Amino acid sequence: MTSFRIGLLGHGTVGAAFEALLDERAEAIERLTGRRPEIVGVLTRSRGDFDEILERSELVVELIGGVEQAYDYVRRALDAGRHVVTANKQLLSRHADELAALARERGVHLGFEASVAGVVPVIRVLRESLAGAHIDRIHGIVNGTTNFILSEMSRTGSGYEEALAQAQELGYAEADPTDDVGGADAAAKMAILARLAFDAPVHIDDVRYDGIAQITGADIAYARELGLSLKLIGTAERLPEGISVRVHPTFIAAGHPLASVGGSFNAVTVESDAITEITMSGPGAGGSQTASAVLGDVVAAIAGAPAASPPLERLPIVEDVTGAFYVHMEVDDRPGVLAQIAGIFGDAGASIKSVVQHGTGERAQLIMVTHPLARSRMEIALDAIGRLAFVRSAPRAISVIDEEFE
Amino acid sequence: MTSFRIGLLGHGTVGAAFEALLDERAEAIERLTGRRPEIVGVLTRSRGDFDEILERSELVVELIGGVEQAYDYVRRALDAGRHVVTANKQLLSRHADELAALARERGVHLGFEASVAGVVPVIRVLRESLAGAHIDRIHGIVNGTTNFILSEMSRTGSGYEEALAQAQELGYAEADPTDDVGGADAAAKMAILARLAFDAPVHIDDVRYDGIAQITGADIAYARELGLSLKLIGTAERLPEGISVRVHPTFIAAGHPLASVGGSFNAVTVESDAITEITMSGPGAGGSQTASAVLGDVVAAIAGAPAASPPLERLPIVEDVTGAFYVHMEVDDRPGVLAQIAGIFGDAGASIKSVVQHGTGERAQLIMVTHPLARSRMEIALDAIGRLAFVRSAPRAISVIDEEFE
Repeated sequence: MTSFRIGLLGHGTVGAAFEALLDERAEAIERLTGRRPEIVGVLTRSRGDFDEILERSELVVELIGGVEQAYDYVRRALDAGRHVVTANKQLLSRHADELAALARERGVHLGFEASVAGVVPVIRVLRESLAGAHIDRIHGIVNGTTNFILSEMSRTGSGYEEALAQAQELGYAEADPTDDVGGADAAAKMAILARLAFDAPVHIDDVRYDGIAQITGADIAYARELGLSLKLIGTAERLPEGISVRVHPTFIAAGHPLASVGGSFNAVTVESDAITEITMSGPGAGGSQTASAVLGDVVAAIAGAPAASPPLERLPIVEDVTGAFYVHMEVDDRPGVLAQIAGIFGDAGASIKSVVQHGTGERAQLIMVTHPLARSRMEIALDAIGRLAFVRSAPRAISVIDEEFE
Repeated sequence: MTSFRIGLLGHGTVGAAFEALLDERAEAIERLTGRRPEIVGVLTRSRGDFDEILERSELVVELIGGVEQAYDYVRRALDAGRHVVTANKQLLSRHADELAALARERGVHLGFEASVAGVVPVIRVLRESLAGAHIDRIHGIVNGTTNFILSEMSRTGSGYEEALAQAQELGYAEADPTDDVGGADAAAKMAILARLAFDAPVHIDDVRYDGIAQITGADIAYARELGLSLKLIGTAERLPEGISVRVHPTFIAAGHPLASVGGSFNAVTVESDAITEITMSGPGAGGSQTASAVLGDVVAAIAGAPAASPPLERLPIVEDVTGAFYVHMEVDDRPGVLAQIAGIFGDAGASIKSVVQHGTGERAQLIMVTHPLARSRMEIALDAIGRLAFVRSAPRAISVIDEEFE
């Protein structure tokens, strides 16, 4: 039995968890693959030399994060004919095409299961189980921080700031939560999933996204009356005109498989004619979960999983997609208000599915859920409504997923 | 570009769906793998010759079902160095060890993703993503027929016979539903999952199972008051003394990921220290879903997925496992009844978590949920309770999964 030599770049939470897990599982992996994995070098800011580690390794695990330095290391490792396993979503959402092509050219494995949804094996399922399928759509809860915050707001009725502080205290949100709560983290992950689902090059710049900072506890409470729960949903969709990849706070109907995904869990639903839909869920990021996903890729590389990636086909990116919306308006409650607002929606081509009003007098809350219309038309309607004299603050629209009218 | 030659054994619902899907996806698969799959022969009862098809094929898809004939074909195909893909759970739950060893020896691929949970990729995830993990437990809803029946009973309040008739009318149950409703189908699937999860030989004879025919609408209604929903749950578990694989009607707490899996869907939860838990769900059997899972295995074989299976280690099978129970008793409602029953449970080492009583007088229904105890002790307690004068019919116990006290 020979050893399988691994170079480890980065030794933070995930790197340390990976080393511990590898140690614990080395014997089982040897039984499984015939080779015993062994870490032959570790690179951190204060120790190790990249060239030396590269020289001694068959596979490089990249866990340093960031884009520029990681890109340089991963590219050089692949170019030198080393397998690479990385958890770096920002790197992949920018350079996946080039890196995958290089891996293919050198006949080595580029594993990135850990970059999306922690231990939920969505990457492998898209690359392998569904390699022969024609995928129509993916919906995902791919950011644990925001799902924790929204779940807390729903559970306790607290506001956004309060739930964020709670998440920070429990370690579910970082001190600077911008990438998570603003949607950029989820956007990078959806770019990675869309690329695999559609065999098409998708860059993070192709993903339209917004975050959850503007959500109020009242939005969540009102929507619950309509049978909806609020999630930060990433969507990758094949449309007649091309593909759309986006991340928005979204209300989903109670029966949807993603509606019951709570806390910091991640979940992804894959839809295709032949399979109807598959849902996979589990804990999102977390040192030991990410380490476990990294280890799965390492085992696949040792076992000689196929290195080939498909040639990719450029598909147009669709910016203006159609969907249902929840619209929140603060209005003076007087005769004719509903008629005027309904008229504006009618002009925009939106028909109303349900209306709920809370309170009366100067500050009534009017909540409407529409049937599907183009986002651009909704924006025109919101603009017109915002200019009405009896509307007291800027109206807000949030996407709704409800299988009933899709 | 060369073609990849497939021999197809069986041309029923799944076989026809597979041929249609292959036709539709052949071009995409050629783009992905460099080879275009092509069916070079079909064997049915009335046409085709096995030896001739074998001669011309690189891969054999076995969809004839049954055990003896299928076993003979699959063994001969592997022995002749052909890849094999099969959806045959009965075959695998009996002969997996021998067939996997033969595939390993000949260096060919034996794919059986379609044998469990339709298109839900649980086999691949166990074989590959979690190859390096130490799996503690699997819970699965792996029979769509029974899940449909139980969901209908819960939704409409109907009895077992009525829901079964409804399932038969809608095509979710066969004219002879014995294998499904009796638990044998789920038991075969759990044997397959347990074998992969624990790298241990597990035969269907190692699986203890019972079915759902004795469940009443009232059981489901009463349990709902306790926050429980009823599923036919397969469990494969690593215990200090060995492994336990079993299938029983089981009440699960509302928050459990399997509690909300409705209709004919299948779902599997995999638990391990490193990953916490992953849940995968989707439609169970169904022609196009099974065909899609078969195609995934075919693509993996074309792409050259690793054929190696691990050497297996024999682990003792544990027969008497510990768990919580829901117990239904029909009693005369008179003083001292509860005290006597509680005394018997106490003697058996069972402590009571909750009690609900329905009705009064001659036919009161007494429902208790216990804290965990060994199944053998519960059987002793049931026996003693059944012999009490004021107990009107045989008491029944159903397993309960409730994370709170596990």
